[in-house]
Amino acid sequence: MNYKMIGRFLSQIIAIEAVFLLPALGISLGYGEDRAVTGFLYTFAIMAALAGILYLLCRRAGKLFSAREGMVCTGVSWIVLSLLGALPFVFCGAIPHYVDAFFEIVSGFTTTGASVVAVPEELPRGILYWRSFSHWLGGMGVLVFLLAIAPTGGKDTGFTMHLLRAESPGPDVGKLVPKMKNTAMILYVIYVVMTVINLVFLLFGDMPFLEALCTAFGTAGTGGFGVYGDSLTSCSPYIQWVTTVFMFLFGVNFSCYYLLLLRQIKAVFRDEELRVYLAIAIVSMVLIALNIYDKASALYGTGSDAVRHAAFQVSSIMTTTGYTTADYDLWPALSKGLILMLMVIGACAGSTGGGFKVARVLLIFKSLRRNTRQILNPNKVQLVRNNGRTVDEKVLSNTNAYLAAYVIIIVLSYLLVSLDGHSVETTFSAVLCCFNNIGPGMDAVGPTCNFAHMSDLSKLVLSADMLAGRLEIFPVLLLLSRTTWKRR
Amino acid sequence: MNYKMIGRFLSQIIAIEAVFLLPALGISLGYGEDRAVTGFLYTFAIMAALAGILYLLCRRAGKLFSAREGMVCTGVSWIVLSLLGALPFVFCGAIPHYVDAFFEIVSGFTTTGASVVAVPEELPRGILYWRSFSHWLGGMGVLVFLLAIAPTGGKDTGFTMHLLRAESPGPDVGKLVPKMKNTAMILYVIYVVMTVINLVFLLFGDMPFLEALCTAFGTAGTGGFGVYGDSLTSCSPYIQWVTTVFMFLFGVNFSCYYLLLLRQIKAVFRDEELRVYLAIAIVSMVLIALNIYDKASALYGTGSDAVRHAAFQVSSIMTTTGYTTADYDLWPALSKGLILMLMVIGACAGSTGGGFKVARVLLIFKSLRRNTRQILNPNKVQLVRNNGRTVDEKVLSNTNAYLAAYVIIIVLSYLLVSLDGHSVETTFSAVLCCFNNIGPGMDAVGPTCNFAHMSDLSKLVLSADMLAGRLEIFPVLLLLSRTTWKRR
Repeated sequence: MNYKMIGRFLSQIIAIEAVFLLPALGISLGYGEDRAVTGFLYTFAIMAALAGILYLLCRRAGKLFSAREGMVCTGVSWIVLSLLGALPFVFCGAIPHYVDAFFEIVSGFTTTGASVVAVPEELPRGILYWRSFSHWLGGMGVLVFLLAIAPTGGKDTGFTMHLLRAESPGPDVGKLVPKMKNTAMILYVIYVVMTVINLVFLLFGDMPFLEALCTAFGTAGTGGFGVYGDSLTSCSPYIQWVTTVFMFLFGVNFSCYYLLLLRQIKAVFRDEELRVYLAIAIVSMVLIALNIYDKASALYGTGSDAVRHAAFQVSSIMTTTGYTTADYDLWPALSKGLILMLMVIGACAGSTGGGFKVARVLLIFKSLRRNTRQILNPNKVQLVRNNGRTVDEKVLSNTNAYLAAYVIIIVLSYLLVSLDGHSVETTFSAVLCCFNNIGPGMDAVGPTCNFAHMSDLSKLVLSADMLAGRLEIFPVLLLLSRTTWKRR
Repeated sequence: MNYKMIGRFLSQIIAIEAVFLLPALGISLGYGEDRAVTGFLYTFAIMAALAGILYLLCRRAGKLFSAREGMVCTGVSWIVLSLLGALPFVFCGAIPHYVDAFFEIVSGFTTTGASVVAVPEELPRGILYWRSFSHWLGGMGVLVFLLAIAPTGGKDTGFTMHLLRAESPGPDVGKLVPKMKNTAMILYVIYVVMTVINLVFLLFGDMPFLEALCTAFGTAGTGGFGVYGDSLTSCSPYIQWVTTVFMFLFGVNFSCYYLLLLRQIKAVFRDEELRVYLAIAIVSMVLIALNIYDKASALYGTGSDAVRHAAFQVSSIMTTTGYTTADYDLWPALSKGLILMLMVIGACAGSTGGGFKVARVLLIFKSLRRNTRQILNPNKVQLVRNNGRTVDEKVLSNTNAYLAAYVIIIVLSYLLVSLDGHSVETTFSAVLCCFNNIGPGMDAVGPTCNFAHMSDLSKLVLSADMLAGRLEIFPVLLLLSRTTWKRR
């Protein structure tokens, strides 16, 4: 491993983070939040110093290019971003305990939305902005952002491809256009435009500007930090419906939007993942609406209420956003079961959503069908197809390995978090929700609760789970492998 | 699919079941249980008639040989065996509702041990025997038994290999000796001898003969139907320790015992699966013993009590037997988490135990490590080794497909069973325990409860899960595939 190369790369990433701190600083200045201003200034100084030192030490490093280096850079960058990003919470006293602050910012960058803050209304406005902005930055990825703005000298290196692969979700990440840099730019332009549209819709619903912006950040990144203590429960049905629709839209593979821009509308509707994603969402919504509809209930007494809450929760959980309008912890077992299933499936590959990804579920089903057929006809070569094209056996093998790693991480995390002595439901759903970047779980970490009461060990384990979930396991797994750190 | 061939095969299987009904009939005769005697006679008559008719209709069928036919025969045989084996319960009035009786006998044959009977002491003795004997027969497999006794004319057909493959657990079933028939005989001889030794040990502990026999059946088949309502809770520590040891022994791959007979002791101790199996059991036992040890408790007040209950439950759950001496539903979250993990892992391949199998867990870990390494060094061919030999890529691919099918079946079953409206823990553990052939779950299906309160739909779903778990999914999955039923 070439440490100097990683160092130079880190200096760039930290510089970007420092620049993104400035709007939050501005907001705190505007609102006269002295302690927050000092906190942001300290953090900015530390970031700037660190970026400068790293740059000076490592500026003569050569070019990075291998997949291994791409993975390691991604893993290390995210950890460093989180370690530094947690500082404002501590300095301004909003979250005085550092482990709590680290958990909160990891939850932000990974677009999880699991929080240790019970009453977000009491946070300084600058901190509130920083917390929600971390969702937006983490959603599309800070490395992708660097890719979009950094001068590459006109030529793609293999490294940029590996970076995009490591940070973007999905079993088989492709380019939209031949040049990586342009792909990254297109992704960010679509992302910004859609966020602005979402913001405008929220403003039409009479939401105050900063709250609307933060909510839009959380929706776009499919994060889920609420600006109110009860998430979106007390918002108007209009705001809830707008958020339902936009959460769903941000859970779609962004290459679909690019195809729409190119007017290849047929290609979009033929996309198998999109169709399955839509089908799962609609079926779950109908089943849950029927299951929770109850004339005696204040929340679900009319059909439209039942449909709205079902649609909101399905959209929120499936895209792994984690906003809530109703306490699904009180729902009947079928609905809770569906919610648990949606938690695992997650959104589309290439979206800002987390989870196992619909594309992988599809591949797993297809490779299972292939293997079953192979038992029936052992001598016939069977291929797996996706959108008409043959899927590379390596992608299939990696998807299966992904499932294995996924199950193993859940089991190990469960055992560590269970040391806290919470109920099985609490422990299991906490792991599931952090690992899949959703946010709220069930029981003692349910929609009406938060993660503040967990032990430090659990918070660190869950933070690692969130990072593993956001970066899709392998970049984090590689950091733990000895071979990775051998010098060439 | 050649229906006549299947018909002839079924007639043999049914004939064997009818013969095995006779000892139960004898016991009921001896105890003067008139209603049970009539029930057994009716069932015997139905079985004999069915076997005769099928034989007459299908005796001219050709030979079976393909893997597909082996799978289908296995799947259909187990369903027919269960449909007929449930009849005595209904006829003698012990379990009047047919779906309940079907659930009970499927639970018996699949060595699950989940029961709808609250007070086994009230069952007629002949029925008690039949219920526990179903564990013993299902443990090693009735098709393997047929293989061991049927005249093959001195020559192996490919079909016998496929049969053994379909009914025996594990990712890669091998022969012990060149001839299938001899392999099957050796397996059954070891099985009978070990069961008799277990019985003798129990008799030394002053257990009445029939109770000891039934307990030995349940231990040997890793089934878990108790002869007492509280399973083995009120038995002496000696009986509990004997059962702990024998459950563990029956969870070992039987080929290890064959190697022991050949005095290849070194080969046994080099077996990777055995070592991992032992390690998991010991680590879990120590952790649980430390976790439940509590001076204030009547059950776990002394170190020896804590160790005994930990060892018993670990051995029982890991081998998927399901006997209990303590209500683990009341244990702390870490212990419950470990129990849940053991439920999934299960015993060794080639044993009478169920679950995912230690061998598969090993393969999954190894293929995950391989894929991680391949990311680091994409150009180096990486092989997976087991006990020093290279593992066929097909076995790896099937193991991964198995994991996928495993997860999918759990999710779908959960959704169907959740319609009953039980808690998440009840529903989830019920599915896990039936699918892994364990028996008792947690909460409302915990060690002190039974499955009688479940709906008929849930019982049928769980019955299907038990069959899928015992036959390792694919024979059952193939029955649902259209291609299977196409005529050639």
